[in-house]
Amino acid sequence: MDIIDFPMHPIGVIHSPFTDKAQTPIQASLSQAVGSVLVYPEYSDGLQDLEGFSHIILLYVFHLSSGFTLLVKPFLDDQLRGLFATRYPARPNPIGISVVRLLERQGNQLEIEGVDVLDGTPLLDIKPYVPEFDVHTETRTGWYETRNKRG
Amino acid sequence: MDIIDFPMHPIGVIHSPFTDKAQTPIQASLSQAVGSVLVYPEYSDGLQDLEGFSHIILLYVFHLSSGFTLLVKPFLDDQLRGLFATRYPARPNPIGISVVRLLERQGNQLEIEGVDVLDGTPLLDIKPYVPEFDVHTETRTGWYETRNKRG
Repeated sequence: MDIIDFPMHPIGVIHSPFTDKAQTPIQASLSQAVGSVLVYPEYSDGLQDLEGFSHIILLYVFHLSSGFTLLVKPFLDDQLRGLFATRYPARPNPIGISVVRLLERQGNQLEIEGVDVLDGTPLLDIKPYVPEFDVHTETRTGWYETRNKRG
Repeated sequence: MDIIDFPMHPIGVIHSPFTDKAQTPIQASLSQAVGSVLVYPEYSDGLQDLEGFSHIILLYVFHLSSGFTLLVKPFLDDQLRGLFATRYPARPNPIGISVVRLLERQGNQLEIEGVDVLDGTPLLDIKPYVPEFDVHTETRTGWYETRNKRG
């Protein structure tokens, strides 16, 4: 096992109405909140054609999480679960992903809906959401499903 | 704009039948290939409960890509597009995401189907695929859609 570090550096910042972890929605799909993505000017040209997509995938850093434990109690459950079976933010590599609706692009600024991250979150990447790659049906969702049935 | 680097370190490795970029499928959903994920033993406990999920999201490093340009010709198109409107591997932060089917977990080893990455790809994170968060319908997919109509 090689120990190699891959340094990642923000390409922009995500703005949202959420300044407090406790207020922040669990996931983007459960949020109607409007926010914006400011991509640093040096990356602006890479946004061309993005406005054709209704949904985009944001990859970002959970910048306020530090350290991790391998068993966690998810926000949506009351039992300890394996960290990788959850979307919990404190992870060995604290990278978050959210699918949001792209309302408008103006130059290097994106207006988005369905944001679920803290204001000031460092952005690592933007990818187009493509149903042929990203939509999977007939899924099983383990503990999450069981918890749903309980509710 | 602060310049802050976030170092990411692999938590495991993805094995696949693909040893050559030219053979590698465009995206996981277009592949039936079987592969495996080896999570390093120190993270093994974090895999608990993952076997309840039929689909998982892998985050990994495009470790053979170096550098990037902001306009690229996607594999699926013949025109230059903004990098962030594509899934092209050479990116400012070369992080890839793929949704794969989880066939079986044996300790710290996962058997997966629908793998589309090169053998030996460094793994950064595993998240459960949850339709309520990850499935979006009624989408528009810009250049990708137009190209589909052409085909």
